[in-house]
This record gives sequence, C-alpha cells and structure tokens, in this order.
Amino acid sequence: MTYDDGLLAPGRAGTPAEETTSDRAFLRAMLDAEAALARVQAPPEAARAITDACAGHFDARDLALRARSGGNPVIPLVADLTAAVPEHARPYVHRGATSQDILDTAAMLVAARTLAPVLADLERAAGALRALAAEHRDTVMPGRTLTQHAVPTTFGLKAAGWRSMLLDARDRVAAVRGRLPAQLGGAAGTLAAFTAHGCDDAPALVAAYAREVGLAEPLLPWHTLRTPVADLAGALALTAGALGKTAADVLVLSRTEIGEVSEGDGGGSSAMPHKANPVRATLVAAAARRAPAHAAVLYGSLVAEDERPAGAWHAEWEPLRDLLRLVGGAAHDTARLAEGLRVHPARMRADLDLTDGLIVSERLRAHVPKDRLTQAAQEVRTTGRPLAEVLGIAPGLTDPTHYTGAAARLTDRALERR
Amino acid sequence: MTYDDGLLAPGRAGTPAEETTSDRAFLRAMLDAEAALARVQAPPEAARAITDACAGHFDARDLALRARSGGNPVIPLVADLTAAVPEHARPYVHRGATSQDILDTAAMLVAARTLAPVLADLERAAGALRALAAEHRDTVMPGRTLTQHAVPTTFGLKAAGWRSMLLDARDRVAAVRGRLPAQLGGAAGTLAAFTAHGCDDAPALVAAYAREVGLAEPLLPWHTLRTPVADLAGALALTAGALGKTAADVLVLSRTEIGEVSEGDGGGSSAMPHKANPVRATLVAAAARRAPAHAAVLYGSLVAEDERPAGAWHAEWEPLRDLLRLVGGAAHDTARLAEGLRVHPARMRADLDLTDGLIVSERLRAHVPKDRLTQAAQEVRTTGRPLAEVLGIAPGLTDPTHYTGAAARLTDRALERR
Amino acid sequence: MTYDDGLLAPGRAGTPAEETTSDRAFLRAMLDAEAALARVQAPPEAARAITDACAGHFDARDLALRARSGGNPVIPLVADLTAAVPEHARPYVHRGATSQDILDTAAMLVAARTLAPVLADLERAAGALRALAAEHRDTVMPGRTLTQHAVPTTFGLKAAGWRSMLLDARDRVAAVRGRLPAQLGGAAGTLAAFTAHGCDDAPALVAAYAREVGLAEPLLPWHTLRTPVADLAGALALTAGALGKTAADVLVLSRTEIGEVSEGDGGGSSAMPHKANPVRATLVAAAARRAPAHAAVLYGSLVAEDERPAGAWHAEWEPLRDLLRLVGGAAHDTARLAEGLRVHPARMRADLDLTDGLIVSERLRAHVPKDRLTQAAQEVRTTGRPLAEVLGIAPGLTDPTHYTGAAARLTDRALERR
Amino acid sequence: MTYDDGLLAPGRAGTPAEETTSDRAFLRAMLDAEAALARVQAPPEAARAITDACAGHFDARDLALRARSGGNPVIPLVADLTAAVPEHARPYVHRGATSQDILDTAAMLVAARTLAPVLADLERAAGALRALAAEHRDTVMPGRTLTQHAVPTTFGLKAAGWRSMLLDARDRVAAVRGRLPAQLGGAAGTLAAFTAHGCDDAPALVAAYAREVGLAEPLLPWHTLRTPVADLAGALALTAGALGKTAADVLVLSRTEIGEVSEGDGGGSSAMPHKANPVRATLVAAAARRAPAHAAVLYGSLVAEDERPAGAWHAEWEPLRDLLRLVGGAAHDTARLAEGLRVHPARMRADLDLTDGLIVSERLRAHVPKDRLTQAAQEVRTTGRPLAEVLGIAPGLTDPTHYTGAAARLTDRALERR
Repeated sequence: MTYDDGLLAPGRAGTPAEETTSDRAFLRAMLDAEAALARVQAPPEAARAITDACAGHFDARDLALRARSGGNPVIPLVADLTAAVPEHARPYVHRGATSQDILDTAAMLVAARTLAPVLADLERAAGALRALAAEHRDTVMPGRTLTQHAVPTTFGLKAAGWRSMLLDARDRVAAVRGRLPAQLGGAAGTLAAFTAHGCDDAPALVAAYAREVGLAEPLLPWHTLRTPVADLAGALALTAGALGKTAADVLVLSRTEIGEVSEGDGGGSSAMPHKANPVRATLVAAAARRAPAHAAVLYGSLVAEDERPAGAWHAEWEPLRDLLRLVGGAAHDTARLAEGLRVHPARMRADLDLTDGLIVSERLRAHVPKDRLTQAAQEVRTTGRPLAEVLGIAPGLTDPTHYTGAAARLTDRALERR
Repeated sequence: MTYDDGLLAPGRAGTPAEETTSDRAFLRAMLDAEAALARVQAPPEAARAITDACAGHFDARDLALRARSGGNPVIPLVADLTAAVPEHARPYVHRGATSQDILDTAAMLVAARTLAPVLADLERAAGALRALAAEHRDTVMPGRTLTQHAVPTTFGLKAAGWRSMLLDARDRVAAVRGRLPAQLGGAAGTLAAFTAHGCDDAPALVAAYAREVGLAEPLLPWHTLRTPVADLAGALALTAGALGKTAADVLVLSRTEIGEVSEGDGGGSSAMPHKANPVRATLVAAAARRAPAHAAVLYGSLVAEDERPAGAWHAEWEPLRDLLRLVGGAAHDTARLAEGLRVHPARMRADLDLTDGLIVSERLRAHVPKDRLTQAAQEVRTTGRPLAEVLGIAPGLTDPTHYTGAAARLTDRALERR
Repeated sequence: MTYDDGLLAPGRAGTPAEETTSDRAFLRAMLDAEAALARVQAPPEAARAITDACAGHFDARDLALRARSGGNPVIPLVADLTAAVPEHARPYVHRGATSQDILDTAAMLVAARTLAPVLADLERAAGALRALAAEHRDTVMPGRTLTQHAVPTTFGLKAAGWRSMLLDARDRVAAVRGRLPAQLGGAAGTLAAFTAHGCDDAPALVAAYAREVGLAEPLLPWHTLRTPVADLAGALALTAGALGKTAADVLVLSRTEIGEVSEGDGGGSSAMPHKANPVRATLVAAAARRAPAHAAVLYGSLVAEDERPAGAWHAEWEPLRDLLRLVGGAAHDTARLAEGLRVHPARMRADLDLTDGLIVSERLRAHVPKDRLTQAAQEVRTTGRPLAEVLGIAPGLTDPTHYTGAAARLTDRALERR
Repeated sequence: MTYDDGLLAPGRAGTPAEETTSDRAFLRAMLDAEAALARVQAPPEAARAITDACAGHFDARDLALRARSGGNPVIPLVADLTAAVPEHARPYVHRGATSQDILDTAAMLVAARTLAPVLADLERAAGALRALAAEHRDTVMPGRTLTQHAVPTTFGLKAAGWRSMLLDARDRVAAVRGRLPAQLGGAAGTLAAFTAHGCDDAPALVAAYAREVGLAEPLLPWHTLRTPVADLAGALALTAGALGKTAADVLVLSRTEIGEVSEGDGGGSSAMPHKANPVRATLVAAAARRAPAHAAVLYGSLVAEDERPAGAWHAEWEPLRDLLRLVGGAAHDTARLAEGLRVHPARMRADLDLTDGLIVSERLRAHVPKDRLTQAAQEVRTTGRPLAEVLGIAPGLTDPTHYTGAAARLTDRALERR
C-alpha cells in the first residue's frame, strides 16, 4: 500500500528533489544522525556496530504507525536500532539525545541534499537564460503593463531579468545551505545527559557531531530557536517566486494570440489532438502558488513555546519537505523550460505594430503636447490610422524598434553578474 | 521506492482518512469516474468492458512519471485504460471528456469518502464530550483569560463549548458533503464533444453521470467556477480550528503545574522515562496550525482564468488532499482524546484557591467600591492574606464555587443541541 | 495626523465598505453595544442617559493610545463613557460585561452593516452579467485552457459562469449575515456578574440584548468558540475569489493582443498618454490575492485557548476589518466593471480563426483517426494552411461557430437561477 | 472622517513605526522621490522649484479618492505637484518616470525609516535580555517539553536563547536594510523616456537618483523582479516570529499556576479589578500570528507577469506596510517587556519539586535500568513519594539544581555574541 507515489504531483515526480525528500531519504538521514552521534561518543567498537546497523533496513511504514503513540518517528526508530545492535553497543544508541536532535538534524541533512540539485538546476536555468538574453539582446518586443502594451522593450532584457531573479534565489539558497546546523541539545537543550554520561565538554561534543554529520555547528541548541527553518522557508519561498515569475511571463507570451515564445516540448491533452500546452510553465506556476503558504506555516512555527512546543515543531515537518519538493521540482522544470524555450522574434515584431504606433506615444511627449497626444491616441484607436499619420510626423519617430532606451545596456550589465 | 509512507505524519498514519486519500484511492476514484462515464454513454457491452477494465490494476508510480509530460495523471491513465479494453470498447473510453472532468470528479469522490469517517469521528468526539460535560456540569474550575485566573467557570461549560464547536464543524462538513458535485464539461465546458458524438441532450448526460457516480449534479461545469473546492476548504479549515480549540485547552490544562486534565494514554519520550506527553492534543494542534494555509491556497485558486487555468487548478490537488488528511487525522485523534480524557476535579478545586479569593473579586463589585477592591487585590498579592480577610467580609462571599453564574444552565442548553 | 486615509488602498477608497469599517464606525458600533446593554438591564432613566451619552463624541485616537495599556479599546471607552453619564447612571455602564462582549458585538455590527452594501453590489454585478450573458448567449469566442485555444465557447456561457460564482458568493454571504450573533458572556463567559447584580435569568438577558442590538442570539457565549468569525472568513474569502475570477478573465480578454472585452472606463498612466488600463479588474485582482491570507489568520484564531486567549482574539480585529474592506471594495468595483464592460464580438470571431481550424480538431475525432488529426495539426501549424484543406474535408466541418455544444442551453439554465 | 486611527491596533498605536508608516509618511516619501528625481535631471532652478513644492502640503484623502481612477496615488499626486510648480519647472516634474518608480522608491524609504526604530528596539530588547541572562545564569527552572516538565534548565539559558533569536532577527533586518534599492525604470523598465529626453547615460542617472534619495542602486529596474520586497518579507516575518517566541514563553511562564515571570506593568481589565494581564506579550503574540500571512502575500507577488503586473504589485502595498507596523509595534513592546520583566526564582525553585524528583529521572538512566525507572516513575505519580525514596538512592541524586548540564556554559557562549 503506498500513500503517495507522486500521482498528484507531476511537478516533482521523478525529479532529484523527490528522491532526496522521500520518506526513505528522511529515514536515511535520521540513521546518519544516529550513526554520527555514536561515532563521536561511543567506544570504537560500539560506534562501528551502530554505524553498521544504521546501514541496514528499517521499515518506514511500520515506524510511521508506531510513531503515532509518541508523536514522532524517532522513538520507534531508536527502539528498532537498539534491537539491531549487539548488547555491548546498546547503551550508546541515541545516548544523551532527544528525538528532536535526530529529526532536526535529519531535516537539515535532507535540506542540504535537496538544495544541491536545486542549486544545480538554478545554475542550469540561469545559464540557458544568459544565452537567450545574449542572443536576443536587441530583439524588440512589446513591453506590457497592466496587460496593455506600454512601450517597447527587448526580449534580452526580459530574459536577463529572469536570470537576475534566479541568481538572487541562488545566492539566498546557497547562503542558507552553508549555514544549515546540526542539532544536539538533549531533553531540554542543556546537554545535561551528555554530562551525566561523563562528557566533560558537551559543547565540544556538539561541534564534533556537527563535523561528523557534515553540518554547521550551532551556537545554541535550537529546539525552539527556529531561525534555521525560517531561513530555509524564506530562501525557498523566494526561489519559488523567482521561478514563478519566469513561468508567468512564459504563460502570457505563449498565449495563442501572442505566441512570442513557446515551450520546447508542449504537453498534449486528453481531449484535443492539436494542443501544445505550456506544461512546464504551468507546473512551475502551480508550485509558486503553493510555496508561500508553506513558508507561512514555517514562519508561524517560530512561535515555539517552552523547550519543545506542543504542535509548532510537529507542524514543520511536512511543510518543510513539501517546500523543498515544490522548489526542487520547479527548479528542475524551469531548467528544462529555459533550455528548450523557443523565441519568435517575428511575432514580437508583428505585435509591436498592433497599436498603430501608440506604443511609442510616450516618446513623443518630448515633442507633442500631452493633450494633443491623448486626442491623437483616441483617433488612432477609433480609425486604425497610424499614429504618425494622425499627427503628421515622420513615421520613423513612431518606429518601436528605435525606442528601447537603455535596454541593451541594462542587459549587458545584468549579464556581467555571475 | 516509497515517497510517503506517513513517516513524517504521525497525525494521520493509520487513520481512515489516510487510506481514503492515498494515491491508490485517487486512482480508484478516477477509474470510478471513467467507468461511470462509460456506463452512461457507451453501448452495454462496451460499458461492461470498460467497467471491468477499470477494476483492474494500474501502476500509480508509472502514471505519476508519465503525468509530467501533459501535466496531469489522467492523460496516461486514459492511454492505459484504452489499451486494457477490447477494440470495440476503445472509442468509448473517456469519450467526450477532458482530464479535468475525471480528476475533479475523483477529487469529489475522495472527499465524500473521507468526510464519512470525519463525520463519524466528529460524532464520536462530540458524544464523549457530551458525557464529560454532563458529568462535570457542576465541577468548578478557574476561568482563565489572557493566561490569568479571571472568574470561576465549570468544566461542564468548557466541554459543552468544545462539543458545540465540533457540532458547528459537523454541520458545515455535512452540508458541504451533500453538495459535492460531479464534473463533466468536456474540453472547454460546453459539452461539445458529447454533442458531436450524437448526444442530443448533453446536460441530461451530465445528470445521469452524476447519479451514476454518486455525486450531486452541477448547475454548470465548474472547471473554473471552483465554489465546491472553496466550500470544502472553508468547512475543513473550520473543522481543523474547532478540533484545535479543544486541543489547545487540553494542552493548557495538562501542564505539569495545572494538571486539571490528562490524556488517557500519554505518549512517551526517547529520552525521559517519566514523561507522559499529551500527544494526541499535540498532533491535533499541529494539524490546526497547518490547515489554514492549505485553505488559503484553495481560496486563492478560485481566481482561475479562462476555461482551464495554467496553474491554479494544478495547485489545488495536493492541498485539498492534505487538508482532508489533516482534518481526518485530527478528528480521529480528537475522538480518542475525548473518549480517554481524565478530569481531575481536585486539582481544579485547588487551583481556584491560588489567588486567595481574588478570582471572585468581580463578584464583590456590587458591594465594594472599585478603588477599594483594587487596593485590596494589591494587598492580597503582596501579603498572601485571603481577600475576605483583607476586606473584612464573610468568607462565603469569596467562595469560588458560589460564583459560576449561568454556567450550569448554559451547559444544559448547549447539550440540548443535537 | 492621520494614519490611513486610503492612500494605499485605491481598491476601497470612497466605497461604502470603507465608511462602514472605519475606526469611527467601529467606535459607533461599540457605543451601540453599550447603549443596548444599558437599555436591557438599567432603570429607564439610566438607560436613557447612557444611550444619550453613547450618541456623543469620543476621541478615537485618544482611545487608541490609551488602549495600549490594557490591550483593547473598550477599557478606555468604558472609562470615558462612565465619565460622560450622570452619577446615577454610572453603575449601569458596561455592567456585568467584559471588553470582549462589546468588541465582538461591535465587530458583528460592523460586519452586518458592511455586508449590506456588499450584497447590493453583488446583486448589481450579477444583474449586469445576466444582461451580458443574455445578449451574448450566442456570441462565439475561443475557449482557452492552459493559455491555448481549446475549443469554442460563448461569451454568454462565460458571463453566466461569472454570475453563477457571484450568486454562490451572495448565497454564502447572505446566510452568514443572517446568523451574525451578539456577544454577551461576562468575564469568563458564565454571565456570573449579571447574576451577581440580581439578574435571575441571565440567558434571557442575552436574548434581549441580541434583539436590542439587532443581531442573532448565540447559543453560548463565543469568546473562544469563534465559529461566527470563521464563517465570515469563509464567505468573504469565497466572495473575493469569485470576484477575482471575473477580474482574471477580464484581464486576459482585455490584453492588447486579444481585445475581446474592455473596461468601460480604462484608467490612465502617469507616463503613457495612450494607455487605457483595466484598472477595476486590476484592483479586484489585487484584493483577491490578499483575501485568502486574512482568512487564514482568522481560521488560525479558532485555536483560542482558555476563556479568552492571549493573542488569538487580538489577532482577529484588523484582518476581519481588512477582509470586509477588500471584499466591499472589490464588489463595488466589480459592479461598476460589469455594468460598463464592453464586449467585442468581432475580435472574438477573428480570434477563432487564429488556429486555422485547429480549434475544432476535437470535433473531427468522431470522423478522423486521432493519429491523422495529430499529423494534420502539425501540418497546419507549420504551413498555415487551413485544417479543412489539409484534411480534404468540407470547410463547414471546421467552422468554429458550429461547435459550441450545449453552451446556449447551459447559459439559459444558469440564468434561470435567481 | 478618519479611517484608521489605530483603534483596532493597540499593538502599534503610538509606536515609532506607526508614525513612519502612516499615509502622511508615504506621501512624504513619494514627494522625496519626486524631488530627488528633479534634482538629478532638471536645471537647478526647476529642481529647486520642484523640491520646494514637494515640501508643501498635499491632501492624502483627496489623492486617495482620485487614485481610484488610475489605480495608484502617484497619478493624482503628479497632477497636483505639476500644478504647484511654476510653469518653467512643469516639464521636469516626474519626467521620464512611471508611477511605480515613485511608489516603489517611497516604499523603500518608508521601510528604511521604519527599520531604524525596529533595529533600535531589537537592540534595546536584546540588551535587557542580556542583563537578565547574566543575572539568572544559574537560576534553575523546569525545562518543559510538550507542556510537561522534562529536565531542569536555567532562566539564563532561556533568556540567552530569546536574545539569540532577536540578534538573528537584527542581523537579517540590518542586512536587508542596507540593500533597499531605489526604483527607476520608466514606463516598462527600459529607461527609454530618459533617453528620449536627452539623457546619454540613463543607468548613471539611476545611480545618481539612488544616491540622492539615499537608497541602494539597483542592478536592474525591479518593477517585476521583486527580490527587495521578498527580502523584506522574510526578514520581517522572521523578526515577528523571534519576538513571538519570547512572548509565547512569557505567556506560559506568567500563567497564574506558574508565575515564574511577570510583566513589569500588567494590564487591567474592564471587568475584574484584580487582573494583571501580560498585555505586552499578548499584543506581541497577536502580531506574530498575523505576520506570516502578510509575508505569504508578498512572496506570492513575486509572480508578477509582464513589465508591470495587473494586481500583484497593487497587492503588495498594504501588506508591506502592515508587516512593518506589526513588527515595529512588536519590537517596541518587546523592548518594554524585556526591560520590565520580573523574574521569580522562588517560584521556579518550587516548581522544580512538583514532580517529586521525576524531572531528573533522565539523569538516573546512567545508574538505574530503564524499566526500573519507568516503574518507579509510575509509583511516584501514584503515591506522591519522592523518586529518591522510591528508588532508595541518595536524595542528592535527584536534586534538580544539580542537573543543568552545560546550561551555564551555553549561556556564557551565547552572551559573547554581539
């Protein structure tokens, strides 16, 4: 019986992030945490035995069901792990730790392992967008505001802007990833049990554990000081939004009436043979709609009373995982979208003429009084006569391709950013 | 490889709602929709063949992976289903329908099948709370506002209030459940393909399909008129909150220092042998923290452009499922919590004396000037002398058990509600 | 010094909802609650004096500043009101009540007073949409799914769908409005102080108070049983989404390249003289983006511990007000939008031809094998030759105006709904 | 007529953030942006005239009402400003800019001006918490997990943890504040109008404008690249949560039954003379409940199509302001709360004994078999006999004050952080 095989999640099914955030991956990460803990405090033989046992098989579904009684999966896992090691090693399993030490460390490991492919996909997408921006540095298209043609812009500038957002996301994700901390505090964050077991310098043990597990050393146990989770929430929500911005533009520009870009491989339909849908952009857009809600839950869980809260912590697990999955899937889809995006400059050029010159009316404000322009715009809209003709000026003055301002220069500058 | 076995979801692992919302359950519901559609429009033999095929096995994971290309799982499912039926029946598979017809109908079926155990658990919980309220109709305890003792109340009134919230939730869930509609509109909601295939009265076909699948007949195809989803969102968010209110009170009242109630079977800890944690309440509280965010996404998806939106629809699937799961799990936990809750009247009585009579200071406002009362309160707090003594009045006037106002009458009235 | 004159809120500035939700309106409603309470329990002369005083002026800003010390504005208001009445009436000011009784009652009064214009605007908008749907019952236009032309639909069906959503919203708002309850429970919801002051039947007093203030009688004091607020949240979030759906479609259809509808009075730009922006739809869309978040906060506040929670209640006030304002403004804008909407059937007709017949490819599935159709679609896209020509069939078979299925019938049926 | 004087906002009424985020402050900031723009591109005399006019009075309410027609307040403001300057200066008013340039720049100025007092209040609060942590470095109290006593901790460690969260918030807010960019892009972000007006190096003009207005120079116009707003959202949501964590703990610890801390000046009640409510913590908790929803809206607005979106931008204004206000108010309240907090070590000490030694049962795991401990815990709970007695061990082994692990060392380390 499987509860979630990704049937409702085409945005992430089969992506790297799905693998790195699966129940198995979480289970693996919990075992990595237990093994690391053993290696930093148990005698070598016991540490080896525990590490070996941690490499074995544990039944996620069975753990899930048994987790109900204590409210978290570490409790039954510790029982199973203890049973799986030889007698001599048993006292060292999970010694001094609390469930949250293991689950939080596992969550950070899962995050670290998921952010790696996310970063790679962001780089891939940014690379493809750089190429598009460079190629279309001077490809003029309508700039649109509040759905209406405003003044011309270039596809180069648009693609450079998309890339710039992805680099913002990359920078924030990379910064957060570098700071993901291990968790070790014991029952109430005082490290008391380690002391009770004879550890002279418990903070040093935390440092060793962090090194062993490959995460940052925390200043304090952060059972209820949830900055690391909130930082993840922020970086991931920003990334989802950055990816969603690109998708939103692709969706507008691929509309049948606009057709200025199209996805490399459009998706089909169960009813209409002719359809070529912007599926990647659609799935990214769907992810971007959902990510902020997950981030809101995680920010809400900052308000975590006591030394372990009754609900706020438990409420983090799935939203954090979902956020990683949504962003992981969306980054993957955006990379593919960017690499396959087809640009149609002829359609862009044709669209520039749709307003019979009105798209450059702003340019004429330096030359024609505003009232006269407004009146002329009205006449153009009613009669369909070109603006230059209505105003009796040289047609070149209303050529949209001559009114792109600093678009090219801005594009160049944006592409200098690494 | 399993992606979600409930390892991070102790609030729902093993509950009825988990089963009814699994990928397999969704797949089953999609096949139910396809079979019903065949039965209302195909020749009997083809209808039978398709219905039979729908009873067969389909691979959820494979469908999930192939769903990526078109963006939804119905497209590959229709392909597999078509392949699974004899030649003569093939033209009737999915005939006239669009993917959204099947997926929306399936989602409503899943909702209907999940709300049944939710309603049962709400009734169970309400029944247990009714018994508690009746038993403790006159059990006096501190009323608390802004964390401080205010005036006395009764545990009966508190439990009656919890029950009242659960009945509110039940009423709203039941109302929504009775209205869950089938979906059938074809590619753009005009039912055109059914007409093209020779159906004279396509709306009548929709009615027949709704009956066949056991859902309400919609007034219009609701591909982008998402009232049914929003109604679900509202009813479920309210239910989560209603359950969360009970949990929040249980968490306060079970605090070590208060101890006025305790869970029947408290959960253990991986570190502390003595702990008996209010685990059910904790998991319900966690669900209540998450539900509003899912509802917000679903309300946001009401803004669905065109005849099928590029993202808003796709963004509904998982949040709707998660909301059903969270509420299903929380209702189940609350039923168990309510049935097992232990009430400790002696602790309540003892707590009433903690403020040395100040808890009834309000009562004295009819007899003692406000300034004098405020001054006396100050003196009580500083000296610990009882309020009656400080004021020089009869001790009976500050007996908390004599100041419960209409609590008993309100409890009786609330319990009359069915 | 003013803190909010609507400068950042063009979506509601000057609308009826702004007036009915202002600080002054809340202050008025609090005074209405205090006056009603006096009238149902004070001797006639005192009741008259308090009612008269409640009609006087109170300084909202001063109350706001003094509210900081106790955390709510009722505390200083009661002080000012007490000072404003003659000696003999003072004992009856606010007698037996708690701050929350007054503030909750005031919030329900504000809601009732705001929902009246909201309902009126929904009716106005629905009426205008009915006229549009009837007029354009047979106006064919492209149906669009995932941004691409799918199959034809009619503007009549689209407008009938918009109207149907608004009627859904109206029904839910009207139902909630009819149930808005008064609040009266005293310090901890037991009505004890009323009893202490000699009231024999405190629940009867609550009923009288509810009648006097013009709201429903509650079954129980609902200080921490927040169903009424959650019901409001749900109805308002659904309404915002329903309005947002219309706006989203208008925004798509008014795009420069599509131009199938336009707002009656488009808004200008500070830079471009020619622009006619769909401003009403933009502001409605903005409101629809914000409403779900407010609803989420209100649903979250259902989890209200004790007899008055330390935060959850206080967190409701502004989101509830904002939600009323957003919906009030958006309903007002939508009414104006619907009444002024200009429809351009010629553009619709022209757009139907953009795909050279592919928009009806679905129709041909009854006659042409799917593979052949897919291949032909490819050829049409590459060569621009019409589909009928590529397939060698009669052009009439690909006439989009002949493929609207049951659109007209569905429109008629939807318009029968009152 | 006033729309918002803070009557519903005791959490921010009268705080610095209220002043810096008022409509007047936004109007001021818009005028600052217009004046700066004039100074970097107009002839000195015109620049002076415009700057002078910007110092004059403009009617916020009138602008609000006129903003409805174009959808933003800059359009009427530019009209009024133009009318207010002499003829010669008029062509230079708002020259080349678009409404969004001014409103975005104003929003960043408002943010910068609000974050200054926020940072000051965070420092104040952190300073007070440092003193508390140092003073109570060795004050032992119960550590609590899932509402139950777990193992002992110290108030020093708790206060050091609160401070650590506030420093995390401070660091993030300070980083964001240092990067707040000016906005200048013209109609569609190409700076074309500046070029049209003869500017050779439009990007250099942007740099000059940024300097003049005192904000960072953006790499690109960010009309639809909303990283700066998302960064603000994240930093503010984290800050609200960090403040909310402290408040949540204060609310627990001030409960009547616990009484381990109390607010310096508790708030009163309209009904109960004796109440001393933790009002500051309550208001901070209310703010923390609301902030994530606003952040979610802002993250959602990252998905901003085109060169100016039809709704996403408009949806940012009020949530950003509200978020600044909520955080500003909560930081102010927390500073006061921290400075006035009274700590009651005697209550802490007494509470440590509530479980008759069970609070240190973990410590005994090194010496007593787990099963024996669980059994003994059961006996302690049933009989009330002390754990040491039940186990027949030296009472010193169960002295809670001897089991604080590395709490003191962790406190010292945390206080080293600046």
